[in-house]
Amino acid sequence: MPSGASRQPRKTAGEFELIQDIHRRFGTTGPMVIRGIGDDAAIIKSSAGRWQLLTTDLLIEGVHFTLDTATFKDIGYRAAVANLSDIAAMGGLPQHLLVALAVPPSCTPVQIQRLYQGIMKACRPHGVQLIGGDTSASQTEIFLAITLTGRVEPQRALTRSGARPGDLIYVTGTLGDSYVGLQLLMRRRRKRPSGLHRVIMDARQSRYLIGRHLRPSARVHVGRLLATHRIASAAIDLSDGLSGDLRHVCTQSGTGAEINAPALPISSACRAYADACRIDPIQFALRGGEDYELLFTVPAKKQRGLHRLVQGLRGIQFTCIGLIKPHPFGMRIRSAEGSLRTLDVTSYDHFRTKPISARH
Amino acid sequence: MPSGASRQPRKTAGEFELIQDIHRRFGTTGPMVIRGIGDDAAIIKSSAGRWQLLTTDLLIEGVHFTLDTATFKDIGYRAAVANLSDIAAMGGLPQHLLVALAVPPSCTPVQIQRLYQGIMKACRPHGVQLIGGDTSASQTEIFLAITLTGRVEPQRALTRSGARPGDLIYVTGTLGDSYVGLQLLMRRRRKRPSGLHRVIMDARQSRYLIGRHLRPSARVHVGRLLATHRIASAAIDLSDGLSGDLRHVCTQSGTGAEINAPALPISSACRAYADACRIDPIQFALRGGEDYELLFTVPAKKQRGLHRLVQGLRGIQFTCIGLIKPHPFGMRIRSAEGSLRTLDVTSYDHFRTKPISARH
Repeated sequence: MPSGASRQPRKTAGEFELIQDIHRRFGTTGPMVIRGIGDDAAIIKSSAGRWQLLTTDLLIEGVHFTLDTATFKDIGYRAAVANLSDIAAMGGLPQHLLVALAVPPSCTPVQIQRLYQGIMKACRPHGVQLIGGDTSASQTEIFLAITLTGRVEPQRALTRSGARPGDLIYVTGTLGDSYVGLQLLMRRRRKRPSGLHRVIMDARQSRYLIGRHLRPSARVHVGRLLATHRIASAAIDLSDGLSGDLRHVCTQSGTGAEINAPALPISSACRAYADACRIDPIQFALRGGEDYELLFTVPAKKQRGLHRLVQGLRGIQFTCIGLIKPHPFGMRIRSAEGSLRTLDVTSYDHFRTKPISARH
Repeated sequence: MPSGASRQPRKTAGEFELIQDIHRRFGTTGPMVIRGIGDDAAIIKSSAGRWQLLTTDLLIEGVHFTLDTATFKDIGYRAAVANLSDIAAMGGLPQHLLVALAVPPSCTPVQIQRLYQGIMKACRPHGVQLIGGDTSASQTEIFLAITLTGRVEPQRALTRSGARPGDLIYVTGTLGDSYVGLQLLMRRRRKRPSGLHRVIMDARQSRYLIGRHLRPSARVHVGRLLATHRIASAAIDLSDGLSGDLRHVCTQSGTGAEINAPALPISSACRAYADACRIDPIQFALRGGEDYELLFTVPAKKQRGLHRLVQGLRGIQFTCIGLIKPHPFGMRIRSAEGSLRTLDVTSYDHFRTKPISARH
């Protein structure tokens, strides 16, 4: 993360090891469980041969959001997008939603309704139906766990494990916007905006970045096209940040990767913020989480097919940012000057420590 | 609840109204969603005509459990049983599990593994497979949301809405044991057992009651038999306590009910505890939650069929405890002396206020 950012990783190396251990000990694959723990969603084969996707995502107050920077509607919206994005990354069509919600006694019924409104606002464009859930009191924190089902054509699901050396690495949209939007919100909530804040951001740029944080888009349509046209060899959604999520693809595919730093798609608003902070905007692009864009890999021979698809998709940017390499290569990034260095893969938690603005 | 018990309802009338409101506003039923919010599990019709069940249950530290009275393994076990029991109440076969777990920084990897061990210990006898989940840090509380899928033969699912006046009301097992087991655990953890505790409970009875609290059984096999033999007209699992759960059946079936107090199945251990506390054990049976037994209704003409089924099930008690009545009758309970009174329907939360033992 840029200097001054929260330094607490969302999932530490120890946590990743723990999850892998749980996977190894308790997880299942088999004739009916095509993918278990470890991808964006599980894939289950039904007895009729159909493929179902299942994913669950947690949002915890003070870890994934605070009421200082998001309304209840925002929280619901973002929780739904996190799940929709998982189904998108598998190339699936989202279908049914279950909501497990625990709220402290201070929450009002109206606030809970707003949260559901946010969930449904994100879900409706995709035809997703709310079918169940559980509501409970908590002692102090708001907990939200959403489970989403989806379906995908047999053999067409996108996974993290299909990348092969020589495949091109693509991302949708621009990177780092959500992280910067959150920084702006955190500055705003402190109610003493620094000179930096006032100078660098015009209202339009600020609105854009905050909107990218509070109301991200799940790339469901893109995922569907990539899967049904068999364009992508692997895919993941960008929730932990580019470097962390690329690591998942490399680990599960048994490959390395080379990222071309100057190619990283960065919005002009994000650049403006970075310039004013005197931070290389590439750091935002590599490590800012929760953009909910898709990262996917494309075999060279399918690049033309991708270009044809892209022409039909107005308003969504597709950028080739690098190349899958053999495993011994590791994960590296090439600078504008042509030098190669190891890509640092820590992804960060936005809230566990003091907000970035407090350290400027 | 007996005098001295926690008086905080788990779900207040206001909360029920809120959930109904969310159901009305945001929930869905339709050709593919046979049951949405409001039953033990949702029923989804797949495109192949098969019926899938989906349920999610929350367990929150300080609300549903405390580390004073349960180990991590116990917590995992009970969370899994809560979900298995929901699938059992629908007459379904449980299949796949997703675990959303948030733990504070004080939790160790070994504790998290123990929790998963508990989950899998409950699931393995039913062939349930762990296929996914999410793990996160929380600030202070442990939060566990489990989602379980199942399947049931089309048209055979048991719901809360099928009871009709004249149907007999049955329960499996004995009632109130789990609540009393929890009281014993809470007394024990206070490390100054009262004279009451020492006098009334021999070690075997105490172990039995605590075991019923920490390691309840989900009545999956019973649910399957009731569904596949078309014996039950409605069913629910006893998680909120008999009176609260019977209310769900009556509300959704549009009926009333008469409970025959002397018929309520109460274990000798529960009676011994109640006698020593000078509390009517029927209060435990009516309002103690988390027994995870099944309550189901049986049309009179199917009673003989039930008796045939029961003969093949050794070790599980089936008791007829009352009769479904027309709606205007309301919910009433008949005492041993023959008098009828309104059945109070509040269900209770075990942890929100001071433990029962603190008030003796």
